[in-house]
Parts: sequence; C-alpha cells; structure tokens
Amino acid sequence: RLNQSPKRVQSGNSLSSTCDTLGFLQKNNSLEERGKLSGSKNLLSCDNSDRDARYRHNETDFSNLFARDLLPAKNGEEPTIQFLLELVDILTNYVKKTFDRSTKVLDFHHPHQLLEGMEGFNLELSDQPESLEQILVDCRDTLKYGVRTGHPRFFNQLSTGLDIIGLAGEWLTSTANTNMFTYEIAPVFVLMEQLTLKKMREMIGWPNGEGDGLFSPGGAISNMYSVMIARYKYFPEVKTKGMSAAPRLVLFTSEHVRQTPTHTCWNSLSLHLSHYSIKKAGAALGFGTENVILLSTDERGRVIPADLEAKIIDAKQKGCVPLFVNATGGSTVYGAFDPINEIADICEKYNLWANSVTWNPHKMMGVPLQCSAILVRDKGILAGCNSMCAGYLFQPDKQYDVTYDTGDKAIQCGRHVDIFKFWLMWKAKGTIGFEQHIDKCLDLSQYLYNKIKNREGYEMVFNGEPQHTNVCFWYLPQSLRGMPDGDERREKLHRVAPKIKAMMMESGTTMVGYQPQGNKVNFFRMVISNPAATQSDIDFLIDEIERLGHDL
Amino acid sequence: RLNQSPKRVQSGNSLSSTCDTLGFLQKNNSLEERGKLSGSKNLLSCDNSDRDARYRHNETDFSNLFARDLLPAKNGEEPTIQFLLELVDILTNYVKKTFDRSTKVLDFHHPHQLLEGMEGFNLELSDQPESLEQILVDCRDTLKYGVRTGHPRFFNQLSTGLDIIGLAGEWLTSTANTNMFTYEIAPVFVLMEQLTLKKMREMIGWPNGEGDGLFSPGGAISNMYSVMIARYKYFPEVKTKGMSAAPRLVLFTSEHVRQTPTHTCWNSLSLHLSHYSIKKAGAALGFGTENVILLSTDERGRVIPADLEAKIIDAKQKGCVPLFVNATGGSTVYGAFDPINEIADICEKYNLWANSVTWNPHKMMGVPLQCSAILVRDKGILAGCNSMCAGYLFQPDKQYDVTYDTGDKAIQCGRHVDIFKFWLMWKAKGTIGFEQHIDKCLDLSQYLYNKIKNREGYEMVFNGEPQHTNVCFWYLPQSLRGMPDGDERREKLHRVAPKIKAMMMESGTTMVGYQPQGNKVNFFRMVISNPAATQSDIDFLIDEIERLGHDL
Repeated sequence: RLNQSPKRVQSGNSLSSTCDTLGFLQKNNSLEERGKLSGSKNLLSCDNSDRDARYRHNETDFSNLFARDLLPAKNGEEPTIQFLLELVDILTNYVKKTFDRSTKVLDFHHPHQLLEGMEGFNLELSDQPESLEQILVDCRDTLKYGVRTGHPRFFNQLSTGLDIIGLAGEWLTSTANTNMFTYEIAPVFVLMEQLTLKKMREMIGWPNGEGDGLFSPGGAISNMYSVMIARYKYFPEVKTKGMSAAPRLVLFTSEHVRQTPTHTCWNSLSLHLSHYSIKKAGAALGFGTENVILLSTDERGRVIPADLEAKIIDAKQKGCVPLFVNATGGSTVYGAFDPINEIADICEKYNLWANSVTWNPHKMMGVPLQCSAILVRDKGILAGCNSMCAGYLFQPDKQYDVTYDTGDKAIQCGRHVDIFKFWLMWKAKGTIGFEQHIDKCLDLSQYLYNKIKNREGYEMVFNGEPQHTNVCFWYLPQSLRGMPDGDERREKLHRVAPKIKAMMMESGTTMVGYQPQGNKVNFFRMVISNPAATQSDIDFLIDEIERLGHDL
Repeated sequence: RLNQSPKRVQSGNSLSSTCDTLGFLQKNNSLEERGKLSGSKNLLSCDNSDRDARYRHNETDFSNLFARDLLPAKNGEEPTIQFLLELVDILTNYVKKTFDRSTKVLDFHHPHQLLEGMEGFNLELSDQPESLEQILVDCRDTLKYGVRTGHPRFFNQLSTGLDIIGLAGEWLTSTANTNMFTYEIAPVFVLMEQLTLKKMREMIGWPNGEGDGLFSPGGAISNMYSVMIARYKYFPEVKTKGMSAAPRLVLFTSEHVRQTPTHTCWNSLSLHLSHYSIKKAGAALGFGTENVILLSTDERGRVIPADLEAKIIDAKQKGCVPLFVNATGGSTVYGAFDPINEIADICEKYNLWANSVTWNPHKMMGVPLQCSAILVRDKGILAGCNSMCAGYLFQPDKQYDVTYDTGDKAIQCGRHVDIFKFWLMWKAKGTIGFEQHIDKCLDLSQYLYNKIKNREGYEMVFNGEPQHTNVCFWYLPQSLRGMPDGDERREKLHRVAPKIKAMMMESGTTMVGYQPQGNKVNFFRMVISNPAATQSDIDFLIDEIERLGHDL
C-alpha cells in the first residue's frame, strides 16, 4: 500500500514531525490530506520559526536511509542521532497531546479495520526492510491508533497517567539494556533494587526493614511467588518431590472478583490480593482451582474474618491443610480494605502463612508498567525456594561479593530492569510526593461520590463513602427511572453501562470501566489514579454519561 | 552529600550535557574536576558552536525545578519538554560512547563502594524531593557506573548489542504506557502481537502459521508455559484438582547446564531449552526437581536420543508417566543443537508432548530485553490452560470482537508491551536483516575458532567447529604450558579464567563469560551476538586475554 505513494508518505512525515502546533496527531486526516497540507511551504516555515531552537532539524532525508545505516554502521553516528531526535519529536508531541483536553482519549477502530490497513498503516511484516522514513510513519501511526492512557479523562484502569520522571526512567532503562540477574552486568540497578526493597519493607513496618524481596513482572507473578514461598516454608520437600509430597493444601481468597484480569492495590500495596491471580497461581502451581476457597464478603466487599475461620476449620475437618490467605488492601472493584490484622491473627492461630506482601507501584503510585514487588519477612526464603544451585553453580571465584546476584531468587532467568524508573520517581518526588498524589486521588473520588450520591439518575452500588478511590454506581436513563425493580429493569439496566461505554469509545471522549459483581448487574467502576485528572474531568465524565445515556 | 556542593554538581551537569566531544562520560573525574572544567567558559562555548542546531539548549535552570513542575502541572509543558530533551542528550551521548572503542566497557566498583556513594551519587531514597538537576545528574551517574552491554567488546552474554530501532521501539512503548490484556486499551499492540506470532509459527513450519502463542517476560516463563500446556493437554483435571489428580509425571532435559541462569537459543529460537529453567518450572509447578530427569549428551553437548528413549522406558517401568522433553537449538554453553527431529519422533512414539516452541528474540536477534515468545501448535490451548473464565467473566457486551483480548491466555494479569520493539525491528530490517545479522555473528565465531584452534596457549573444550556462535576454550598461561595433566594442572587451570576475567573487569576493557562444565574446569565461553563486533574486536579480546594472563 505504501509503496504506491512514497512521495505522499514522505510529505506527511516531514509535516507531522515539524508542525506540532497543527494538531496533526489527533486529526483523522488521510494521506491525501497530508499531501495537501505539506504542499503549503509557507505554513511549514512559518510554524517552524515559532519553535524552540532545539526543535530545528537537519533536513535529514530518511527515505533513503535504512536500519543498516545506523550505528554500528560506519558513519552511522549522524543518522542515528537524527533518527532518535526525530523519534523524540514524535514522542514529545504525543506527550503534549496526552495532557491536552482538546484531544481525544482514543480514535477507536475495530480489529478488522486496523488489520485491513488504515491509510497506509500496514501491520504485516515482510522479508525486505522498510526505510527509516516509513519506520517513523509507523511510529506515528502506532501512537495515533492507540489509547492515550495518560489523558486526564482516561479512567479505565488503575494503571493510568503518564509520569514524566517514570517515562525518563524507562527511556534510560532501555538505553542501558541490561539484565538484573547478576551484579556483574547490572551493578547500579541491583543495588537500587536492594535499597528500594528495604525502604518498602520499612514502610510496611517490618523491623529495620529486614527480609527479602524481588521485583517481578506484575502482581500476578508476585502473588505466585507468595504462594510458592508459603508452600516452601511449610512443605520444603515439594521443591524436590512435587506436590505428592504434601497433603491436600488449600488457599483462601476473597469472592470479590474483577471482570477483566486486573490486580489491585492499597496505596499500590496489597497483601496478596485479587482472587483472580490466586486462582491462576493455584492452577499453575499444582494446587488446583478447587482448592482455592472463596471467602464471603460484607456489603462493602471486605472479607469477613469469621467466614475465614469457619472455612479453615471446615477444610481441616475434611482432611485438607489450610496454607495461605490472600487479603487485599484496596480491592479491584469496590476498593475494599480487607481487615488485614484480624485475618493475620487468624493465620497465626491456625498456623497459616502471613509473612509476605505484594506491592504494585505501577498502580496507585503511577509508575509505568511493569513494576511490582514481592516482599517477604523471612530472609533467604526466596533463594531457598527458587534456587537450583548445587555447589557447582556457585561462583566463589568471582571477584565481587556474589550475594548481590539475584538470579537464584527468581523463577525467571533473565529479568527486566523494573527498578530504575521507580527509584528515579522516588528520588524526584520524595515519599511525600507519592503521598500527595494519592491524597489528591482520594479527594477527587470523594468529590465524585459527593456529586452523584444524591443526583437524579444515579444509584450507588454500595452505601457509604468509598474506602479507596473506587466509586461504583449505576446510571439510570430517563426510561428506567420510574420502573419498579424486577427482572425487566435489571435486564435493561445491565445493558446501559456497556452501551454508554461503547459510545464513549466511539466518540473517543473518555473511558471508564464497568462490570457486574455477584448478583449486581453491570455498573460503572470509576477509579482515580491519574495525576492529570481534576474536578473538571470528573464533571466531564458525568456530563458525558448523561449526554450519551439520557435517552437510552 | 550532594547538598554540600550544589554549585559544583550544577556545573558538572551543565558541562556534560553540552560537551559531548570532551569524552566526559567515560572519564572518572571527580566533582572537583567537573567544577574546574566547567569554569572554562571558552571551552564550553567553543564546543557548543560545533554542534548541530538541534543540540542547542535553552539554558533551563533545573536546579529550581522539581517533578511537580512538570506536566500535568500548569505551565508544565515547557519544563517537561526541556527536561526530556536534556535527558535525551544524556542518552544519545551514551549511545555514541557505547559504540566508541576508545571508551571502556565498564567502570568497575565493588558493591560496598557504590553503596557508600560515589562522588555524590547517593542511592538512598528520601522523604523530600530532589531537584530535576539532581535527577539528571543521577541519570548520568547511573549510566556512568553501569555496564555498556552494547559496546563492541562486551561478549559476556548472548543478550548483547544496542539496536537503535529496538531502542526507538522501547522509547515509544514506554511513552504509550499501556497493557496487553485487552484490545480495548492496546488495540495496535495486540494486533501486532497476533500477526508477529503467526509469522513466527510460519517460520517454524506449522501449516499456515496456525496455532497459539503469547509473549512472556522471558524464556524461563515461556518454558514454564510449555510445561503447563503439556500437563493441561494430557491431564486437564490438574487445573481444577491439582497434581494429586495426575500420576507421577516426569520431565526430561539436557544435563548441560549453564553457570549463571541464562536461557539459550537457536537463531534465538529454542525448543524449550535449558535444563535450568525446566528445573525451576518443575519445582514451581509442583512436579518436583527429582522428577526432572537429565539426559546424557555427546562430546559436543547434544542430547543422545537413545539415552532419552532408555530413560523414558525406565521411567515407565518405575510407574512414572513421561510427559515432556526439552530440546534445545543452540545450547547455552556449547551452542549445541539437540537432534530435534529424532527427539520429536521419540516423543511421538511414546506419546509425549512435542508441540511447542520457546523463541527468544532478545537473544541472537538482538531485540532489547525482555522479548520472549511461547508458540504452540494447538489453537486455544493457552486459554484452556490459563483462563479462569466462568461465563460471568466473559464480556459479550463489549462492542468489539473480544476474542482479541489476551488476558485469559496469560498467567499474568497486567502484561508489558514487549511486541512493539520487535515488530518495529522486523519492519526496519526485514527477515533478511535478521538473517544477515546472524550470519555475520556465525562468521565471526568461525574467525575466532580458526584463530585460536592451533594457537599456542589455547585448548579447545570440544573438538570440531562450533555449531553456533559459542566458542569454548582454555587459555594456558606460560607457567601451565609444559605441565603434565593431573590434579595440580587442573586446579591451576581452574583459577585462570576467573583471574583473567576479574582483571578484565577491573581494567574495563572487555567482558567474556567463563564456567566449568561437568568434569571440565573453568573455561572461557565466548558468544557473539553483538552487531557492533568485528574481527578487530575478536583480535582485541585474544590480545587482552594474553596480556592479562600470560604471566599468571
């Protein structure tokens, strides 16, 4: 497709890389339009003159340059730098647009539309290389057809926002391109991880921050670690002999489950939360999902400690061995805080595991994905559980202290550097910066709650103020407001949130999640973690729900 | 520490961000030196004038700016862009230095030295925020004390090199900051993953590229998926009932093991390779490491099919059920290619799993970490194995085709976007570009092999040409050359490679791995995957080994 019109693509490229004030990115303009616009030389040079000197480009012609012309190629330095700066132009324009409320959150297309190729954006891979110009066009198109998760009106998940320091951290991490498994090849990152984990353990309240820990590729994997550690603590022979060496083990977690597989957090901290990931861990690790027992919750979605105790006793009577309880600080749907101390007391009473925490800085703390830590009170247990080290694997002949190597603790071999962006954000904001951010999000959710709790057309999913930033509510179109409760109303109401969400996405103005829960039909689940969001964005969301949903 | 000399840090900062021709980064200069240098105004302006217009900076004073002044702050756009461009200056300077043979591969320090704080580089986190100037200094120091894994003389692992297109892909990925679990929030990336996986399956040779697959956070996790899938295929009830629902299952993998936990590849492709990760999977998934049976290898490190068959028969006689064989294309140490077709025939004969492939583009294909795929011939089996979806989890009320959502296939909940950098590299290089890169690496290893096979002071670890880019050899210092074989010679030889490696790291000139294997004492394992490496770098490595080791 592109080969048919290389000239126009070239024009489009040079236009969009220099005319950021034209709002190019969010316009759904075709190649033809790009061609027309770029014909206007005066416009271009005029726009150019307004710009910071840093933005001035060498007029590098990328149409005759290829990946093979970049470093390490001979004379590759100049095209390499020009290419990266051109890309940075695209990215910084995207960053600016992300925070600009006059732009859309997304430009929705169905899978088949994108697969058919949008205006020259061809996803298919080929045997032959494309020019760097085409690569830059592909980068621009990738962003154009994506979702601006940092947009002030993107509320779809708890991982929202685009933190500039975190972004800088990721750019540096990928430039350093190394691996966490030994100090030898990641000295600085390995130490940053160690210090940060200690700081996190101190904040949890473990004496002197002692214990163990590791960053893992997401909350589900951190939770999987926690189950493995618990099993290793009580039945270490499972490591060598398998699950047949243990009695029938059972795990407990909340009945509250989220529609899409998302991990939750309490100030981005969680004590092995989320039934979904515990069930996945139960299946993977050989426990079986039937041995993951769901705990009843109160009307606010909190685990009922008495139910836990009854189910522990019941499991023991059936000959099972209760091993592990998953409690959550800030559940996914309701934002509920399970009564962690009471649960811990019960764990202690019945000798269940209660000594680890999953903490996901990529949730409420706004760290870019992926950033999740498993923290354990017992020092050395991660390596005990996961090391495959016979003596011959230990390299005492290395010249540095190899206890800093982390490979033995992990179930991964190579491990991505997830620590740097988080460390850098912590340096840049301080602990108080994270605190202020979370307080602001809590204030905004309070604002939303106060705004709609008595507003016509709204019903809250549970009574009382939210425990976290989650606000769960139904919106009732005019046609449903007088209708008596019953199957018809339920069925109609169940379809309202999906319809509004679909229209939101089509119009690209905002995004918010919905789901059913237990016997409750589809409701909106609003979560606020985006540092760009303000009261005006909350107002906008409510206006938009009413605009789209009023006449349903 | 830094608070004592803010002025000097500031000077250092502005110097290194503008004077890239001074070779600032690789100089081990102290803050005092930075201060002196930056005092020379003429030098600075002179240097500045040589530079591309793009490099000219607004003289933004970052010492009074903080993270809170960046977007989404009011008037945050200008400092945000200036901050990101300042960072990009640091990063592009690092990129240039990475490919510059006059710079060191690393500036080695012991853990305690870095922990004590190097010249104001303080790793500790605090409650209060640091200025953006300090953040930029921290970024520069992080790179300064790290390891240049893209340096032409970095040969330490198979993941080496700094691919500029891959780097661009990572920068864009982190700017887009989204999550692979639904099409809704990652439409473009989800489709790129789907198309790329299909292309990979076509290259493996599966009819029409049909099947299933997923990118995962590394080869060990991909291998873990493969074991889970095999178990699900033969004993699906394990998912719900746990391992007690299955007989005693055994897994097979090569006895060849690598010292440090690294995953291997064949043209970055591997059929569930690496004993290390299979053992880890065996422990984690509840099989037990004793049920991971090691297969004997020939003198070239290849699994012996007859040994596999004998061990399968033996396991069956003991009442076990052989489930899974891990064969490797390009083993970690010797670069051996297991006889995959013969192994597959035996699997078919005895009804073992042989329908999945782990392919790690972050190895020989040079894609930045992390980039690993699990590919399966059976369509739908990943979701069957990992989905926790009861009917109520399925959202048929979404407006798009939800079969594109990938959350149900994964053991993760959130999943990092690993596809884009790989897709972009494939676009930019074409299939032929990857082919040429791998051929070049094979040529270089051939060059090394030819250079040392008959050279005085060298002994090859195995006879014959390497099957892959791995060249394994002993270097004998003068003092060992006449010595008869025996314990004394073995003990001395065992210490040679570690000593040379330590000196290499101290001098920072090059890095290459070593390890023992079976009854063979420590030898150098050279692997070539770095696109920047040339024959002159191979020559340099050999010269360096001889310079450092000759008189040991």
